[in-house]
Amino acid sequence: MRLKIALLGGDGIGPEVLAQAVKCLSAVHETFGHDFLFTSALMGAVAIEKTGKPLPENTLELCTKSDAVLFGAIGTPHFDNDPKAKVRPEQGLLNLRKTLGLFANIRPVKAFPAMLKQSPLKKEIVKGADLVIYRELTGGIYFGKKQLSQNGTFASDICEYSESEISRIAHMAFKAAKKRKGKLTLVDKANVLETSRLWRRVVTEISESYPEIEMDCMYVDNAAVQIMLNPKLFDVILTDNMFGDMLSDLGSVIIGSVGLLPSASIGDNNAMFEPIHGSYPQAKGKNIANPVASILSTAMLLQHFGLFEESNAVVAAVLKSFQKNIVTPDIMGSSKYGTDYVGDFIAENIV
Amino acid sequence: MRLKIALLGGDGIGPEVLAQAVKCLSAVHETFGHDFLFTSALMGAVAIEKTGKPLPENTLELCTKSDAVLFGAIGTPHFDNDPKAKVRPEQGLLNLRKTLGLFANIRPVKAFPAMLKQSPLKKEIVKGADLVIYRELTGGIYFGKKQLSQNGTFASDICEYSESEISRIAHMAFKAAKKRKGKLTLVDKANVLETSRLWRRVVTEISESYPEIEMDCMYVDNAAVQIMLNPKLFDVILTDNMFGDMLSDLGSVIIGSVGLLPSASIGDNNAMFEPIHGSYPQAKGKNIANPVASILSTAMLLQHFGLFEESNAVVAAVLKSFQKNIVTPDIMGSSKYGTDYVGDFIAENIV
Ligand SMILES: CC(C)[C@H](C(=O)O)[C@@H](O)C(=O)O
Ligand SMILES: CC(C)[C@H](C(=O)O)[C@@H](O)C(=O)O
Repeated sequence: MRLKIALLGGDGIGPEVLAQAVKCLSAVHETFGHDFLFTSALMGAVAIEKTGKPLPENTLELCTKSDAVLFGAIGTPHFDNDPKAKVRPEQGLLNLRKTLGLFANIRPVKAFPAMLKQSPLKKEIVKGADLVIYRELTGGIYFGKKQLSQNGTFASDICEYSESEISRIAHMAFKAAKKRKGKLTLVDKANVLETSRLWRRVVTEISESYPEIEMDCMYVDNAAVQIMLNPKLFDVILTDNMFGDMLSDLGSVIIGSVGLLPSASIGDNNAMFEPIHGSYPQAKGKNIANPVASILSTAMLLQHFGLFEESNAVVAAVLKSFQKNIVTPDIMGSSKYGTDYVGDFIAENIV
Repeated sequence: MRLKIALLGGDGIGPEVLAQAVKCLSAVHETFGHDFLFTSALMGAVAIEKTGKPLPENTLELCTKSDAVLFGAIGTPHFDNDPKAKVRPEQGLLNLRKTLGLFANIRPVKAFPAMLKQSPLKKEIVKGADLVIYRELTGGIYFGKKQLSQNGTFASDICEYSESEISRIAHMAFKAAKKRKGKLTLVDKANVLETSRLWRRVVTEISESYPEIEMDCMYVDNAAVQIMLNPKLFDVILTDNMFGDMLSDLGSVIIGSVGLLPSASIGDNNAMFEPIHGSYPQAKGKNIANPVASILSTAMLLQHFGLFEESNAVVAAVLKSFQKNIVTPDIMGSSKYGTDYVGDFIAENIV
């Protein structure tokens, strides 16, 4: 297979972890003989600095023409602490998601046996946890009209959803449930929000076409608690953009580190893969960032293109690094292994 | 002191746990000699059944004229599963909060030493946790205009905030931080939402009048994770209505049970006290619901009116019930003590 892959390192530790992902895809090339054509481009604060725009036209064009995008991370403290900034790094990411039509963000949360002790949760709670979150990614309050009054004392954000936006990701989530444990939980706030009630109506109707799937609904406040108390209750979680942002980060509590979780953002014609962690600016350039989430993103990429054996080989190499304790200091305080070293080890073990 | 207290049992286990709270206030009356004038009224699904309205006029009038409201819980599965219902129980609660102007919902989360093992989190993580959440309660997406298109395929909810709505609760939260550990964390999603950027600007400006308070900002997705990983990082958390709904329920993960956490909703002229748990319909009438959250709500009520000794006496009685293992089955599976019995024990020990 031959895949054109756009590389967007972004901000903070993004470029460092992305470099390890690229190493691993190169190892896949050597072992399995597929061709990956990599092209790098700017997005985020780094793009604002160099071009004035968080998502320059040529970056967008490159991504549109690529088979897949591998992305690092976005955001810097400078912009975070300036509520009045006119241009922000995150606009680049949101704009890219929207333009590429990446409506489904998929975040698998599966406890690694070797990492159980990492979790702040008790072992018996996380052991065996295996769920996946389907987060709607191009709608809701992220993309509705935003306003700040002339005098700056009044602000608003609109949350909007249409039936078609809900149904396309719902079908995807039900199909995933069919291949998994056969359960789907819709998370919403239907006792308060009109958009949530639309979600509940549409998803309940769609569930009738999937009689083999057990579907239930949960309010988001309760869902956040239940995911912590009993993650094993869940199989597929389907939810909107804002609720998904929070719930999927909670998934990292189960795993014990944000440094281990990948995600895929899928549309009809494009796909992007990225770690769920942020740009972690304090660690930038220190060679301490955990590259595993970024590397596992390539496993999701390979799977997306039907390269299952290759994907499994990447996962197996990651598991081997856990067994041998070739991990970054976020996982084991005493570890002397850096981002680079861990990336090299995993790449070498892709066989 | 003489206090007029409106009692709204509401739905599910609400009336059962409220009855225990009333027992405890009666014990406070006997021990300390204050007078509490209780009047009961309907709200929620039970009010819809009997009057067609979730918040009947005479209930609202009673609450307006009372010094405080003690509330149980709201919601039934019937309404939860009917996205098209025209009237819903929760409207009663939202309407009451809005009409009484209860703009600040205060949820203290303090780990009970006797309950540490209840938490799904490891002991070393929860031990010593002591934070309080200030959730804005009468604004944001809960109260903005909601719309469903004529053909039912498009829905929207507006999230709105004004500077004055933010500043009044911010001042309250900064003052609380002054009496506590001197730290305030604003939780928002300022990298995406205009309303969050308004929060960040206003709260940052207000922080200049409280130079002794250390203030920081955190994105809500990260905050959810950090509260689980290291609750001791936090002192006062200030946030909007929707984020506060989720974060404060996560507080119950630290404590190990939703059955133990009270809350106060405060306005300029009124105050309401309630457990954070929901109506738990499966437990209704079974005498198994945990009355502690409702009883601790009375401790918050007493404190609100400056009755500190009385408030401490209620808390001490609750702690005694923990020590003696006089707890409901949610806390100790083998327990044979019911809601009533635990309520009686605590009331008798208010001395
Ligand atoms: C950076 C930010 C805009 C983004 C989001 O909120 O979607 C991030 O938190 C994520 O989850 O990918
Ligand atoms: C019942 C519901 C409307 C309510 C809310 O979301 O505010 C509840 O979850 C709470 O937190 O008090």
